[in-house]
Amino acid sequence: MSKQDKNHTANGGFGRRQFLGTAAAAGLAGIAACSDKGDARTGTAGAGASAAGASHGGSVGNVHLKPGELDTYYGLWSGGHTGDMRVLGLPSGRELLRIPCFVPDALVGWGITDESKRIMGTRPDGTLRYTVGDTHHTHASYRDGNYDGRYAWINDKINARLARIRLDYFVCDKITELPNVQGFHGIFPDKRDPVDPAINYTTRIFCGAEFAIPLPNAPIGDGTTYRSLFSCVDAETMAVRWQVMIDGNCDLVATSYDGKLAATNQYNSENGVHFEEMMSAERDACLFFHVARIEAAVKAGKFKTYGDSKVPVVDGTQAANQDPLTALTAYVSVPKNPHGVNASPDQKYFICAGKLSPTCTVIELAKVLDWFDGKLPKIDDAIVAEVELGLGPLHTAFDGRGNAYTTLFLDSQLVKWNVDAAIRFHAGDRNARYVLDRLDVHYQPGHVNASQSETIAADGKYLAVGCKFSKDRFLPVGPLHAENEQLVDISGDRMVLLADHPVRGEPHDFIIFRRDLLQPKQVYAMEDFPLAVAPDQAGVTRAGRKVTVRMTSQAPVFTPREFRLRRGDEVTLILTNLDKVEDLTHGFAIPKYNINFIVNPQETASVTFVADQPGVFWCYCTHFCHALHLEMRTRMIVEA
Amino acid sequence: MSKQDKNHTANGGFGRRQFLGTAAAAGLAGIAACSDKGDARTGTAGAGASAAGASHGGSVGNVHLKPGELDTYYGLWSGGHTGDMRVLGLPSGRELLRIPCFVPDALVGWGITDESKRIMGTRPDGTLRYTVGDTHHTHASYRDGNYDGRYAWINDKINARLARIRLDYFVCDKITELPNVQGFHGIFPDKRDPVDPAINYTTRIFCGAEFAIPLPNAPIGDGTTYRSLFSCVDAETMAVRWQVMIDGNCDLVATSYDGKLAATNQYNSENGVHFEEMMSAERDACLFFHVARIEAAVKAGKFKTYGDSKVPVVDGTQAANQDPLTALTAYVSVPKNPHGVNASPDQKYFICAGKLSPTCTVIELAKVLDWFDGKLPKIDDAIVAEVELGLGPLHTAFDGRGNAYTTLFLDSQLVKWNVDAAIRFHAGDRNARYVLDRLDVHYQPGHVNASQSETIAADGKYLAVGCKFSKDRFLPVGPLHAENEQLVDISGDRMVLLADHPVRGEPHDFIIFRRDLLQPKQVYAMEDFPLAVAPDQAGVTRAGRKVTVRMTSQAPVFTPREFRLRRGDEVTLILTNLDKVEDLTHGFAIPKYNINFIVNPQETASVTFVADQPGVFWCYCTHFCHALHLEMRTRMIVEA
Repeated sequence: MSKQDKNHTANGGFGRRQFLGTAAAAGLAGIAACSDKGDARTGTAGAGASAAGASHGGSVGNVHLKPGELDTYYGLWSGGHTGDMRVLGLPSGRELLRIPCFVPDALVGWGITDESKRIMGTRPDGTLRYTVGDTHHTHASYRDGNYDGRYAWINDKINARLARIRLDYFVCDKITELPNVQGFHGIFPDKRDPVDPAINYTTRIFCGAEFAIPLPNAPIGDGTTYRSLFSCVDAETMAVRWQVMIDGNCDLVATSYDGKLAATNQYNSENGVHFEEMMSAERDACLFFHVARIEAAVKAGKFKTYGDSKVPVVDGTQAANQDPLTALTAYVSVPKNPHGVNASPDQKYFICAGKLSPTCTVIELAKVLDWFDGKLPKIDDAIVAEVELGLGPLHTAFDGRGNAYTTLFLDSQLVKWNVDAAIRFHAGDRNARYVLDRLDVHYQPGHVNASQSETIAADGKYLAVGCKFSKDRFLPVGPLHAENEQLVDISGDRMVLLADHPVRGEPHDFIIFRRDLLQPKQVYAMEDFPLAVAPDQAGVTRAGRKVTVRMTSQAPVFTPREFRLRRGDEVTLILTNLDKVEDLTHGFAIPKYNINFIVNPQETASVTFVADQPGVFWCYCTHFCHALHLEMRTRMIVEA
Repeated sequence: MSKQDKNHTANGGFGRRQFLGTAAAAGLAGIAACSDKGDARTGTAGAGASAAGASHGGSVGNVHLKPGELDTYYGLWSGGHTGDMRVLGLPSGRELLRIPCFVPDALVGWGITDESKRIMGTRPDGTLRYTVGDTHHTHASYRDGNYDGRYAWINDKINARLARIRLDYFVCDKITELPNVQGFHGIFPDKRDPVDPAINYTTRIFCGAEFAIPLPNAPIGDGTTYRSLFSCVDAETMAVRWQVMIDGNCDLVATSYDGKLAATNQYNSENGVHFEEMMSAERDACLFFHVARIEAAVKAGKFKTYGDSKVPVVDGTQAANQDPLTALTAYVSVPKNPHGVNASPDQKYFICAGKLSPTCTVIELAKVLDWFDGKLPKIDDAIVAEVELGLGPLHTAFDGRGNAYTTLFLDSQLVKWNVDAAIRFHAGDRNARYVLDRLDVHYQPGHVNASQSETIAADGKYLAVGCKFSKDRFLPVGPLHAENEQLVDISGDRMVLLADHPVRGEPHDFIIFRRDLLQPKQVYAMEDFPLAVAPDQAGVTRAGRKVTVRMTSQAPVFTPREFRLRRGDEVTLILTNLDKVEDLTHGFAIPKYNINFIVNPQETASVTFVADQPGVFWCYCTHFCHALHLEMRTRMIVEA
């Protein structure tokens, strides 16, 4: 523990530590072996000075909204292996929407309608290719360094998929599966073009692959031959533009505000296949990508392809990138097995959280560019600070006033520290007090983010911290615990815990931004749907065994009010909701046919099925719409 | 509008009514034709006297919890066509858990694991029979008139399924599909046995079928030949004990505290197939079932069966039940198309909400039993009140102090009324003021429930009202709006709106009960799982092409740490979580194999799949568990 750190060590820590010890025992035991200062801290950290109720200089106002009062911030939350994206209102922490993308959603009919199945992807037999997902990171599109409200992206780690969410309608419109990738973990959009100054907005998404595999995949046991790819996806077409083969693996991803650099934190530079091997080296790296040079190399044909994939793959290994003036990549060393890498809103630094090291490493981007320009002798000279914060640093957020907020997984703390002071401390100024405050959180925090933290407009009001364990913080509901997204006021000198918000497992990343950055549309435009059924088009048409049922909904009536099929017909049923009133959504279920989906105002959706069961089937509205909602039905009569 | 009602009509109603008019236009237009006093109320109701901020005599304390403070009530919420059950903490409104039952859940691996697929039901090819659901009503098991914490049940309207939730582990353990039923709507458990006084707890669940169909189902167009069945399911075995064929249909269901009577509200006694026909008769019925007599008839062999079903079906039609002394059923008339039927906590009354009539009908249960005993000349003499409340009454809750709280869908109001006063008013006392208060809610409320309202321990503290439309109450998130579960303080004379809680569509019913009624378990018992893998049993065994992989998890290690398969192997992978610490859940994903599931502490789960893709597949822990969580993996190597 550093001297200044001791100043912040308060009383009462031991009891809490004991409790943590029983609950995260494996974690503490695991880390003790690999943290050189772990023992000294065990049982002594845990300030708690800023716990709820303590005085502070915060000014964010009441976190609890009156009935009808609107939140002031949107939050986009990843849903972990629930597989969705979630939209929260903040500061209330209320979940306003879950956006299905990788995983079917029975409410919407996601994975049921023809339109959603095309986005999700199907096998040759028409069934969904995947019904599980593991979303980790979500970030939104930029213009001039702030969110522009066009898109958000979210990744599926299990099946190496990237989904795009339209932020006008809050729906997923495209999903791309990355070739030759397993364990697709970090993503980040670029913030402007590295070359063309007119392109001051996001046009690329960078994607890190965590699990090295044989390229192309084959049953090879020797892990030292495995490789990982760093991928670039086009923001508009969602096609994979190019990939970079690297040493080691990719973890989290960050991008610079000038568009020139992307980076991924890297663990397992050892290419180990067991965790002991993966953590054997003392240092791994933050791996920088020179975007313009990579794209020039691709243009010049300096790439390979692997397996069935046509995506160009350039060589980003260390051995192939020794000359700074031609290098596509640069490996800045950081202590072993780092986790998060975050860009500071002053546009100057990437900060790497140490995970198995109690440190954060501050890398100055101008110096990285100097190295690529041949002006910095050693790439590690770009490291301007590497300071101790506590046990298990994972991720860092910012307040726009020069301060960083890093989660300490093992300490179950949030630590507030000043970046400039850390740089001075690292440079030798032992009087530089970089740790400003500590806050106990509950418990084992992972991601952290603050309002507007990932933009140049970081405003330092609210911070959310994603606690992986909630333990005793909510009423018991059996073995599966909610996670705890704690809300913290960071507007004052001391952090103040405002509220515990339970969430279904397992949010990883999230972003928080001002509500005025979005202007969502709440009623669809009928002409946006090629299959839309006009009022006079409702009815049944037949071409042999192929039957098309065109249907409209207008509360409390489906038209046609009954329709007949023959057993074995291949049926496409197209439903247009003619209701125009905001919030007047209808559902459409066919009993025993495993069909249910919704149509929002002026929306059209379709389903295709075989009429394989004879009888009367009451298709009914599943989304409460009207006093005669229960009576809103149409009869499907399937002749034997 | 009644005279006393006018006393509660306040100013300011018109502007709000205009707003409602644009948002629920169809509803108002639809009702105008069928409510004899609708016009007179349009534009004039909407008291608003008890809106937030008004003074009141409430004493429930602060609705907003401090960080770490626990809720005092559990809420079990149905998830509508999201297909789940949800557990909320109240008064915070925080969602603590979603319990998958009818619909796959990617977080848990529900619909992925062999265990969950057996509960959900599969087709001959092993795929899930259904992946959509439409949950409506949820109620819990009783003992001596209060919840006993054993079970809750929830129904799927689309596919006529009833699920049971164990309230020790908060998991679904059984699902039953009702034969010859479509549109399974209402459910209610009994509260004691009708005959055996020693059975003072729930042993039956009653289930209503809303959509009449041909028995057995066949492509018959003439709706007058269709019939509905009222079903009784055994609470322990979850087998269907018996069914009753009735005239008309079943909507909501209620049961008496003495175990003798069940009832269902009935609309469409006309057997119409279009909504105009379904609402053509002036009165429908609340249909009572004499449980003991029905079971005696079944025992005596007085039943039929339909189609493939072996379930005995007795005749509950009006024509067959004219003699009170032998009748199995009794049809108490209520105004057209009633909706909710609710049992008052004083054990005396069922209250039927009028939906298309502005009334509630109060039926005295003692008088219904008198009719069955030949002591009441006309069954409709059991009606002790039928009073006007406002437009679109749907459901009623109780405070245990003699007051009822009914939602008015079209008026977007909650009306508090006194049952005894209503009875006096109905008996001719024009001075009896039965309407005590009105509260505007936001908007179009459906179900309502109050703390302990469905038990003899109704405590009159909190009330939640499920508003079907939220419109402008939350930040806009595109066309699909959250619903709004508003929380109301009913502890004082006037109702006070406390908070808006958004929820994903579409909760229908819910119950709220004191937290001390449950003692959930948070760690499983390993011996409860027949397939549990002991630490020394991890490994791979092969019998021809059938391979069993026995695996354990203990943070941060899966054992075995790699395993080899041959392409085409039929693999069953069994995973036991050896970790014993509360909240230490692991996940297990196999990339590209569409497999992910969790194992909670000491839990065992299994998956079965064909190893059809060769290569290296990094199976990884998807549930954050440890500082080395990212490194927690095992390799599946599939030889070509």
